Amino acid sequence: MASSSSPTETRGPELRKDPINNRWVIFSPARAKRPSDFKSKSSSENHNSNSSSPCPFCFGNEHHCAPEIFRDSPDPNVDWKIRVIQNLYPALSRDIGGETECHPDGEKSGFPGRVVPGVGFHDVVIETPVHSVHLSDLGPTQVGEVLLAYKKRIEQIKERDLIKYVQVFKNHGASAGASLSHSHSQILALPVIPPTVSGRLCSMKEYFDQTGKCGLCEVQPKDLLIDETTNFTSIVPFAATFPFEIWIIPRYHSSHFHDLDSEKAIDLGGLLKLMLRKLSMQLNNPPFNFMIHTSPLQVTDTQSPYTHWYLQIVPQLTGVGGFEIGTGCYINPVFPDDAAKVLREVNIPV
Amino acid sequence: MASSSSPTETRGPELRKDPINNRWVIFSPARAKRPSDFKSKSSSENHNSNSSSPCPFCFGNEHHCAPEIFRDSPDPNVDWKIRVIQNLYPALSRDIGGETECHPDGEKSGFPGRVVPGVGFHDVVIETPVHSVHLSDLGPTQVGEVLLAYKKRIEQIKERDLIKYVQVFKNHGASAGASLSHSHSQILALPVIPPTVSGRLCSMKEYFDQTGKCGLCEVQPKDLLIDETTNFTSIVPFAATFPFEIWIIPRYHSSHFHDLDSEKAIDLGGLLKLMLRKLSMQLNNPPFNFMIHTSPLQVTDTQSPYTHWYLQIVPQLTGVGGFEIGTGCYINPVFPDDAAKVLREVNIPV
Repeated sequence: MASSSSPTETRGPELRKDPINNRWVIFSPARAKRPSDFKSKSSSENHNSNSSSPCPFCFGNEHHCAPEIFRDSPDPNVDWKIRVIQNLYPALSRDIGGETECHPDGEKSGFPGRVVPGVGFHDVVIETPVHSVHLSDLGPTQVGEVLLAYKKRIEQIKERDLIKYVQVFKNHGASAGASLSHSHSQILALPVIPPTVSGRLCSMKEYFDQTGKCGLCEVQPKDLLIDETTNFTSIVPFAATFPFEIWIIPRYHSSHFHDLDSEKAIDLGGLLKLMLRKLSMQLNNPPFNFMIHTSPLQVTDTQSPYTHWYLQIVPQLTGVGGFEIGTGCYINPVFPDDAAKVLREVNIPV
Repeated sequence: MASSSSPTETRGPELRKDPINNRWVIFSPARAKRPSDFKSKSSSENHNSNSSSPCPFCFGNEHHCAPEIFRDSPDPNVDWKIRVIQNLYPALSRDIGGETECHPDGEKSGFPGRVVPGVGFHDVVIETPVHSVHLSDLGPTQVGEVLLAYKKRIEQIKERDLIKYVQVFKNHGASAGASLSHSHSQILALPVIPPTVSGRLCSMKEYFDQTGKCGLCEVQPKDLLIDETTNFTSIVPFAATFPFEIWIIPRYHSSHFHDLDSEKAIDLGGLLKLMLRKLSMQLNNPPFNFMIHTSPLQVTDTQSPYTHWYLQIVPQLTGVGGFEIGTGCYINPVFPDDAAKVLREVNIPV
């Protein structure tokens, strides 16, 4: 691979395959600015600043929200630090009855087996009571507590047999899909295993069958490393789909995010905070998404050796057009080792 | 399925599977406005209006462009109606040497089999010499000529063994990925079969194995129909990924778009024009993408019975967030039969 001594301009385009997600990415430096020139056009900072309506996620406005599921303090008279609540506009209905079969509508409309009732959970994690505080402003322990709130909610949800997969994600900034600027993340519990998850399982099985190893336990090449802690590694993946995409990977083998303990949560909290601050510094506080890629709630003994959760952070710098929708291939103008070098070298003021 | 007499508000969420692309979509009316209230926030009309630099795609500015591949008139002294040119910022390098093996970089970096040289073609089809004219302003015959320009270019490209798949697409409006407002589309010829295409082939094979039929030859339910012509049907697909997504499907069985003849091209040109005008009228000239989903250039005799090309039109009304990136599932607030009804009823002034 090119080292830092070979400038981006001299590298030809390359297609790289991500063996975890079985996806090809086109690295196309001819379309690039210099990696260090990437900035967000639409800083997420101004998001919602014009809105005059009170923020329902702020301390004191709890009555504007859908019902609370839990808060970090068991005593409701004590100020909260984190609240997990129902989404006021849920994508799925919590009305989980006895329905586990295909929807009768499917039969009637001539599409048997192609309709499933839209039941599940769609929750919101309010990460702080203070409107102006972002997740990356919190200390490592506090970020860890947010991660532990995800874990606690997943453990509640996994008691429901109907739920097959839980997607935890955060949208920061309007163009990354956030409809409110107050720092929050979302938990969507689905009655089906989504296509990227079943695809990932297939690819990781294939890698395991070929090599006898878990694809995410493999030691990462140094030029893709950004940082590491006792339990986690942060890298720009070899076939990053998006410029400056980051993966945080547990250094221990683990299928499920929700097996995280308190010590590892604080460790991950510190690394997640650092990565978000580096992206913010380098890319002018860009809108971003992060997603926790865990395994389906039910993992068999044969699946355990090759399933390994990780967290993906994607700054929203480039739009998606017809090529990406059509092919599922992405065009990334920044080579991963260039992005990793830039991110390694960003200095975060203490 | 709900008829027009059951208002959207009373329908519960539903998950639907698209058997062509093997993708689940969440239909979530609780998040919806009324289908007829959908409008684009960012009309594509103002796109690039501030730019003072001359448009390289306009008649007279040909020298600002990358080399021409062909124009619709064989006589270079005659004014052109359509030009097919190289992309000035190609995602792939046209420098197709003898390389058909994996890139040596892959071996060196410890990722054998995961790197392919970024060679292929990335071309632009300028659909009209006039800056202010959109594709949908052209007559059916002229739109047909644009489609025949795609066909001609694909037929040139398919002579190159290295190319496995050709993606034709159009980005209209900045937020749909268009960097120039002058009406154009793009052709990207790839040295790999992209993941959505191989996934689609698998799903269509599965459907064929189960039913003995091609999934796209099946007669579409009336409530999903928008319009039809001698050779083509336009529908909102049963599991539409995006609100007001449209598929135009040939009524005759055909694996490859590039087998289109002149008569069918004019027929398709008229229907494509009508669908674009309906979307523009109904949704306030939204940014949109269209993609031609054809088959890999090499299709075996066993694949022919279940491979069937179609054209997908996607107005860009909703952003993509962490949930969609994470799961590959989409949340669509508009039920397809509601969208089809709205689009059927849009009156286009003559």
